[in-house]
Parts: sequence; structure tokens; C-alpha cells
Amino acid sequence: MKLNLPRTIEWINGKVRLINQLLLPHELKYIETKDWRRVAEAIRKMEIRGAPAIGVAAAFSLALFVQGLTTVDIGEAKEKLYKAAEYVKETRPTAVNLFWAIKRVLKAAEKAVSVSDLKEIVIEEALKIWREDEETNRRIGEIGERLIPDGGTVITICNAGSLATSYYGTATAPIYTSHLKGKDVKVIAMETRPYLQGARLTAWELKQAGIPVKIITDNSIGIVLMKERVDVALVGADRITRKGYVANKIGTYPLALVCNELKIPFYVVAPTSTIDLSIETGDQIVIEQRDPEEVLKIFGHRIAPEGVDAIYYAFDITPPKLINGIVTEARILEKPFEKSISQLLTSH
Amino acid sequence: MKLNLPRTIEWINGKVRLINQLLLPHELKYIETKDWRRVAEAIRKMEIRGAPAIGVAAAFSLALFVQGLTTVDIGEAKEKLYKAAEYVKETRPTAVNLFWAIKRVLKAAEKAVSVSDLKEIVIEEALKIWREDEETNRRIGEIGERLIPDGGTVITICNAGSLATSYYGTATAPIYTSHLKGKDVKVIAMETRPYLQGARLTAWELKQAGIPVKIITDNSIGIVLMKERVDVALVGADRITRKGYVANKIGTYPLALVCNELKIPFYVVAPTSTIDLSIETGDQIVIEQRDPEEVLKIFGHRIAPEGVDAIYYAFDITPPKLINGIVTEARILEKPFEKSISQLLTSH
Repeated sequence: MKLNLPRTIEWINGKVRLINQLLLPHELKYIETKDWRRVAEAIRKMEIRGAPAIGVAAAFSLALFVQGLTTVDIGEAKEKLYKAAEYVKETRPTAVNLFWAIKRVLKAAEKAVSVSDLKEIVIEEALKIWREDEETNRRIGEIGERLIPDGGTVITICNAGSLATSYYGTATAPIYTSHLKGKDVKVIAMETRPYLQGARLTAWELKQAGIPVKIITDNSIGIVLMKERVDVALVGADRITRKGYVANKIGTYPLALVCNELKIPFYVVAPTSTIDLSIETGDQIVIEQRDPEEVLKIFGHRIAPEGVDAIYYAFDITPPKLINGIVTEARILEKPFEKSISQLLTSH
Repeated sequence: MKLNLPRTIEWINGKVRLINQLLLPHELKYIETKDWRRVAEAIRKMEIRGAPAIGVAAAFSLALFVQGLTTVDIGEAKEKLYKAAEYVKETRPTAVNLFWAIKRVLKAAEKAVSVSDLKEIVIEEALKIWREDEETNRRIGEIGERLIPDGGTVITICNAGSLATSYYGTATAPIYTSHLKGKDVKVIAMETRPYLQGARLTAWELKQAGIPVKIITDNSIGIVLMKERVDVALVGADRITRKGYVANKIGTYPLALVCNELKIPFYVVAPTSTIDLSIETGDQIVIEQRDPEEVLKIFGHRIAPEGVDAIYYAFDITPPKLINGIVTEARILEKPFEKSISQLLTSH
């Protein structure tokens, strides 16, 4: 059985093709470009979003950059690549995958001895990042699938879905694997203001794949988990600290609190690359604050009176005590996360 | 010092004047009419909303009705009044205050012995309902004001504000009183999907009154209460059970959970008329489920793919353990609420 779902981002004959997610769920349109800056712009404008997909896009942006290099001086080429990398880095401040992918590409680039060598190495590394992401997610799906009973309902927030990765998604991977194995699985998607990624993206991709999905407003989590059957919460992560604090889309922390209160298992689903060993606790994570206008306008309509401002943090932090486990491509990490994370990453 | 805030609904020289809330926050326009049916229509079309305000509007509609009576036969006049009352009742078939206000007016009307007597009695009773609501709220404000420190910030949800009452509001009353006493007070208003009453109405009325207010998305409560200074949460109530379970706008329960976790005092602010002694716990409250289309469309734009449905409960239930106190017009009720509620209502 094959998943009936278009690919988020692809490298096709020296071009990058990606779904313009700002047009979903009503229009499936692609951005196809050879311009590395256009890919960086797609990250900045959130035409592509989701930590792993951003990582792939960043790597592809650098791949397009080296592809377009005209110098034959390897020193100059590398210097230019570093500058381009700085430029790409500045598109989104919180996503660790962005930095991780760029670092990985730059590290591979180090050993290049000629410009043509550099081009080959960088492009190959970007393609590897892209393919590995999909492979990682498939493994996450295999491992996480057992958390979903046949006939079960999953609640999720934002889009830690296929659209947030090169393919298959993270929080959605166990859902897709369950579906492909013939299980009956339903999803409740939090709409996820202000960008409505849950309503627009998660609902879209699940529907494409033939999985029943219902939308709720973000403030409905309390009553919905009280009144409806929900078996497990699966959420993505933008960053996981050494002690298991999880930065993810705003609304994740309140969802974890409700789940904890109502005894519904709450799992974070993310590749090990999301783990940032350099930080310990949640307050060490810098939370991106975005333009309040993004909250104050919906479809061009201002929702508050003129002169009234908004506060817009893009992520929140869920403490480890509210998390039942962290599903990775290697295994499901259990508490205490400091220990299980350390064991996993040293055995790698 | 006077509150610089237009009145929600007024009786002026035999006319009813009310703010058309459908045009807020962008336009302040009044509906001014001698036509009792027009006031009923305003309830039906939600040009006026909020349980106490609806009660006042219903009473005023009947006041306009008797004012326009041309018969001199008291029997005929009463019969016509009962018919008019039936008509007004049908505007919002689930609004408790609507029935309560109509019942009260009709009860007063019983003792009328002539048509001119009837006119006087009904108009006077309607004015009393109107004034009492404001007076109740002012007392709530006086009592709740001490919960807000000078320089403090209040978080609130939906609109339990002046616009939901004849004047002054319930959850907003302590804020207005603090402001009038010269305290520096700021407000964070949850936008409150799907109708955005927080962004549209609460932000509007606080801004009118000169109180600084910022909007947040409903899912931001976790990170905002972690990162910003918030001193107290004040929320309204649609119904309070004998044991202190509170039905209020969806999002109230998650807010209470976050406040509880982060040690921010969480108070319910409501007149004693909101207490329903006939029920004990939250699961006995029937939670209204509304048309999913109201979630799925924002400003006419569909947020999810065609064919995807939503779940829309309009209220949620906050258990008493998460509530620090219930601010009423008599006093602040403390835990155990079963005891303090019973004491209050028997001493009344």
C-alpha cells in the first residue's frame, strides 16, 4: 500500500520544487526555482515550514547556491558559501534543524578541493539530508504506530506532518503507518492560530491520504478531551533539551496540561536531530516572537480595534513531567529523559 | 472619575438605544427605535449579546410594546403582552436570562388594573432590571478590585464585559473599578475563537475606557503566562453549579489549568444569579454544541479543505479545584464552594 500524498519538497534536475503551503488547503501549487534566495525566501515567508522541511529547504538553498557559483577559486567559493549560509540562517530563529542542516552541509563542504568538487559535495549532502529525513520518519512511524489502537483517535496540533518534512511527517508518521497497516484511525486536528496549520495543512494532508479528520478551535481542547474519545496526543517538536523540555507550536503546553489532567497519553514525536544537548531546560530556549500583525489580521480582516496590539510568541515550552514519551527513529524515549536521551545519543 | 465607555443599551425618552455589536470593533453605531419588534430582532441577529444584556433588551422590548398599546381594555392588553412575550422568547431559545427577564416583567404586569397602569408597571420593571444589572456589576467591581495590584495585568477570555451587560460588565468590573480608582491596570485579552469576542469586543471596550489591552491567540496562554507578567485571571461564567463547577466559554478550562500550574490566581467573576443550585457537578451541565460551519469559516473564508468537518462545543467546564475564588456582588466566595455558596444563598 502506498501513501496517497504529494511530496513537500523535491530536487528535480537541478531545480527545487516545493508546495506553496500558504495556498493550502484550497490550491495545490508548487514553487519551482533555481534561485537559492527564492528558497530562503520561501522559508522566511513560511511558504515552506516545519523544522525538518526547513532543514531540507536550507540545504537545497545552499545546493542551488553552489550550483550557481561561477568562480573557479575554491577559497572564494567557500567564503561565498559561508556568507550564503549566514543569509539562510537568518530566515527563522528557533528551528534547530535549520542550523543543523546548514552546519552539516558546511562541514561536508570543508573537504572540497575545487569548485566542481564543492558543487558535487554540497548537492550530494543536501540530497542525503532530504532522503534521510524521509527514512527517519518512516522509522518513527514504525516505532510509534503501536501507540495508536485500532479504531483509535489521535489529537495533534499544528502540522508536524508530511508537509513539515520531506515526506511522511513526524507526529503524523505513526498515523500514516497505522493507516497503511490497515488500522482504522481518526484524527482531531487543533486549528492552530494564527496560521491555522492544523486546519489548513494537517487536515489537508490527512484527507489526501484518506484518513478521517475533524477540526477544533485551539481553545476547545479541554471540553473535547472531556467529551470525545481520544486515545493519544501526538505532537511534533521544534527543539528538545537535554532534560526533555520541548519547544513546539503555541498550544502544545496547554494540550499537554489537559492530557495530563485527563490521563490521556501525551507523546512528542521527533527525530533525534531535534534534540539539542547544549541546553538543559526550557527557559534556555529563545522563543521566537513574531509580528503581532500576523495575529491581528485574519484573511486581511483586522480582528481588534485600530491601535490595539497583540503578543505573539510562536512556540511554547512543555516540561518533561507532562510528556509520556518521546518517539524517535531509534526508539521511544522514556523518563527520566535526561538519562534516556543521553543513552540514545551516546549509543548512536 | 467617570468611565469613558458608551452604554450597551439605554432607555431614553420612550426609545431604546443600543450599540450594534455586529459592527464592532470598527464602527460604533447605534440602533435607536420605538419598535419593540426591532429590539427583538436585535437579540435574534446578535446585534446585542451577552446573557445579562439580552435580559435587559427583552425587558425593554416588552416596555416598548406596552408603550405602543392603543387599547383601553386591560384584559385585551395583557393578552397582547403575553403574545408579544412569546415572540420575544423565540429570539434566542436557549438564553436563560431572556426567559428570566420576561418572566419577571410578566409577573409585575399581573397586578395592573388598567392599561395605563400596565404601561407604567412594565416600563418601571424593565428599567429596574436594567439598573439592577448595572448596580450588581458595580458592586462586583468594588469587591473584585482588590485582586488587581497597582501596575498589574489581568488576563481574560471572551467578553464578560460591559457589552455583555447593561453596563460595566462582570469580569471587567474589577478592572474598571481599579482604573477609576487611579490604579494602573493592563489587560491581556484572549481572542476567543470562533467568534473572536475577546479581540473584537473586550479589546474595544477596554480601549474606549483608556485601559491598555493586548490580544493573544487562545493557544498562547501557556507561553504568555510563562514569559509575561500576569497577576490574575478574571473570567465570566455562564453557569456555576452548587459545588463550584463553572461552565464558561471554551478555553476557560485550559486557562485555569495553566494558571494553576504557574501559580497565577484564577477567579471567576459572576453575579449570584449565575449560580444554579439544581446541579452539583460539571458533567450535569449540558454543553451546547453549535454548527461546525461557525468554526470552519472565518470572515467567509473556509479554513479547512472541503469535506473536512469540525467539532464545536461552545462552552467548557472548569472544576472547582482550579478556581481560587468566585467574585460575586455580595462577596468573594472561597473554597470549599459548596459551603460558601450555600452560606451566601441562604443568608440572602
